[in-house]
Amino acid sequence: MLVVPLIERKRDGGALTPEEWSALVAAYTAGRIPDYQMAALLMAVLFRGLARQELAALTDAMLASGQRLAFDGWGTPRVDKHSTGGVGDKVSLVLAPLVAACGVAVPMMSGRGLGHTGGTLDKLEAIPGFRTALSLEETKAQVMRLCCAMIGQTPEIAPADRRLYALRDVTGTVEAIPLIAASIMSKKLAEGLNALVLDVKRGSGAFLRKLEDSLELAQTMIALGEDRGCPTVALLTAMDRPLGRACGNALETEEAILSLRGEGPADLMEVTYALGVEMLLAAGVEKSTKQARQRLENALGSGLAAEKFEQVIEAQGGNPKAVEDPSVLPQAKEVEVFAAPETGVVTAVDPRTIGRAIVAMGGGRTQVEDVVDPTVGFVITVKPGDKVLAGEPIASVFARDPAGVQTGFEALRRAITVGERLAERALPLVSHRVTKAGVEQLGPPTTPRARGSRAARRG
Amino acid sequence: MLVVPLIERKRDGGALTPEEWSALVAAYTAGRIPDYQMAALLMAVLFRGLARQELAALTDAMLASGQRLAFDGWGTPRVDKHSTGGVGDKVSLVLAPLVAACGVAVPMMSGRGLGHTGGTLDKLEAIPGFRTALSLEETKAQVMRLCCAMIGQTPEIAPADRRLYALRDVTGTVEAIPLIAASIMSKKLAEGLNALVLDVKRGSGAFLRKLEDSLELAQTMIALGEDRGCPTVALLTAMDRPLGRACGNALETEEAILSLRGEGPADLMEVTYALGVEMLLAAGVEKSTKQARQRLENALGSGLAAEKFEQVIEAQGGNPKAVEDPSVLPQAKEVEVFAAPETGVVTAVDPRTIGRAIVAMGGGRTQVEDVVDPTVGFVITVKPGDKVLAGEPIASVFARDPAGVQTGFEALRRAITVGERLAERALPLVSHRVTKAGVEQLGPPTTPRARGSRAARRG
Repeated sequence: MLVVPLIERKRDGGALTPEEWSALVAAYTAGRIPDYQMAALLMAVLFRGLARQELAALTDAMLASGQRLAFDGWGTPRVDKHSTGGVGDKVSLVLAPLVAACGVAVPMMSGRGLGHTGGTLDKLEAIPGFRTALSLEETKAQVMRLCCAMIGQTPEIAPADRRLYALRDVTGTVEAIPLIAASIMSKKLAEGLNALVLDVKRGSGAFLRKLEDSLELAQTMIALGEDRGCPTVALLTAMDRPLGRACGNALETEEAILSLRGEGPADLMEVTYALGVEMLLAAGVEKSTKQARQRLENALGSGLAAEKFEQVIEAQGGNPKAVEDPSVLPQAKEVEVFAAPETGVVTAVDPRTIGRAIVAMGGGRTQVEDVVDPTVGFVITVKPGDKVLAGEPIASVFARDPAGVQTGFEALRRAITVGERLAERALPLVSHRVTKAGVEQLGPPTTPRARGSRAARRG
Repeated sequence: MLVVPLIERKRDGGALTPEEWSALVAAYTAGRIPDYQMAALLMAVLFRGLARQELAALTDAMLASGQRLAFDGWGTPRVDKHSTGGVGDKVSLVLAPLVAACGVAVPMMSGRGLGHTGGTLDKLEAIPGFRTALSLEETKAQVMRLCCAMIGQTPEIAPADRRLYALRDVTGTVEAIPLIAASIMSKKLAEGLNALVLDVKRGSGAFLRKLEDSLELAQTMIALGEDRGCPTVALLTAMDRPLGRACGNALETEEAILSLRGEGPADLMEVTYALGVEMLLAAGVEKSTKQARQRLENALGSGLAAEKFEQVIEAQGGNPKAVEDPSVLPQAKEVEVFAAPETGVVTAVDPRTIGRAIVAMGGGRTQVEDVVDPTVGFVITVKPGDKVLAGEPIASVFARDPAGVQTGFEALRRAITVGERLAERALPLVSHRVTKAGVEQLGPPTTPRARGSRAARRG
């Protein structure tokens, strides 16, 4: 096929036909279109966008490039959650077993750390033995037995997305809203879901920092899902500061386990419950927000959710003792406490600086083949708006060597700023609810946190 | 080097430093940056442009990637002409020997056909034996001996441009003004010139169709030349219809030879003389337009220009008899006359349709390795505004087989439209003169052509 005229048409603001998108994706996946032509086309898409019909065709072509999970005849409703990614975002590790414990199946397919953000797979693999590379058949059997599996993108699902994603990652074309939407939805629609809940991050630590971009992404994905028979709802949540206290793979897994045992930080739990409520409502197992929230709290309080996570860990080859005793998780060689540089109010905890520091300390990737060190990261016990005294411990650095500690300290000095007062209010934790019907702005900012929970300890 | 942050910065509207451009070009030329990253960056440049400092750094880096012609101590002024390309544009073949016959050295480096436009090298190679691949040493020796050499881009000159150009050609990134300017000027500045004259085409058959784009390109190249000690002037010329009558390699070479013998079409001669005048003035061998024009007409009328072309052909291995007897040029197997479909006024002769048909008939390339058939093409004897009678011969098709004739006829039916009156006036042949001082709009449209020259004959 002649690719240059298609690149030129998109570049000049025109649209490709659904047949052209379909042929392009098939030819690229089969290796018949070189990476350099696809890279130029993707950059043109970044500037010009995709018409609704083009985006639908691209998503369908990516979906059609692989297989799908099929649960024909199985009566249990299946709902998944997807997050656009952030720093300290370990919601999936809490939410999947929690919702599964409420009788809703969660066939969760997640990704690895990307740029400054962490990835659920890397966090899960901090659990000794945990295997995220299940086949589609294994995944299906486990979901039907336990209501939950937590896996990586299998080679059978949307191989076109794998190739396109890898190319976007090295060509500066990640931040294109239609490409993000197509990538996410081509995978999620392959999971055989009854409904999907999206956690779209906003703020300085999100891939898309501007509210209007986050809303556009949410609406784009909702349209794609709804048009394909998968009811989709999105919550916009705050990523202008890290979520929870722990940032770094094993540290976040530990915090997720503590959360499943009822000891989670308030902000993490608020976001987790808000998404869980949407999942139970979308699954049809509860009719009201209040009832759904109550059911989630019961599943957590009774220990069922923690037990579900144990079962999932065991089924996927991991050490289930991690839930009872998180000290079986790998431990950092060096741990140092970071003190507030002066007395005042915390004016910012910049998530990008934190996320980039974790990568620099060995806890993320700069190249696909990099091996991640699960032990490194931070526990940051202050949030914007908190009052601190000079010398007070406000964070801990977890590193593999003294150089890593220095990197971590430098990052904390830049990320955590202290001043006289908060210049800007922090973003509300859950600010908007988006459905096919429209955008609903939600209530007041954030749950107050107890001052006592702020000791600079692990977890 | 980390390329993705550079792509992202350019994509988001920022500028790269001169050092970054220099390192990028060096690494790409050495094969250390993959094509897909460069393709994404080039597309971002197409959308975002380059700041003046960036463009200068890119051009210098491309120039520095290779060698330069050096004529140190040789007193003869050296001036070249560059055209942005069109259909029927055989000006170089007339102009180089004509200006050389006036005592100004022309070390002309040209390109091959590109897209719908023809290339000087392909036209020269229609002369049996003509060798365009001279080394830099051979070129220098020939220029010092004959005042003229007509060559292709040697491997020694701007190898970075060769690689970048080949990539742009297959990634839809040809039409970026700064990239066009850098590509042209990195080659021209390697020729060791005292001055440069640019023929920037405008109108439907030009790469850049809009006047403002043509002006921007002219001014961009002038700034690059002037900043590097090479006085540069540009004329904007019409490419809303083919130039002259012949379109196709051997046919155009024949028309160029006839022009050197004083039998050229009026429009071709007007453009050729206008550019020649600029070259003589820039070389400093004449002080006024009138004197320069007179000198050119004398060189042509005396036969010196035709003789110069003979010498150049002979020096470069071609058959010099072609000048005396153009029938030694390769001849098409099939020649058919095309008649006016109705009585009326010719409202358009669309150059793109003509140019694309030549490619389809085998006279151009769709891939780099394609072999060009020099014999195919058209002789079109009408111009927009001409009155025609139904059935009157207005063009000839030259093809290698009956299928090619059909392709040619179909193209002529689409390209040549006849109506009641001209909807839009044709563009002035030479409409603007651009120098570092500014833009000067030039006189009346086009020289009237003698009705008698309109027979549908060859040449």
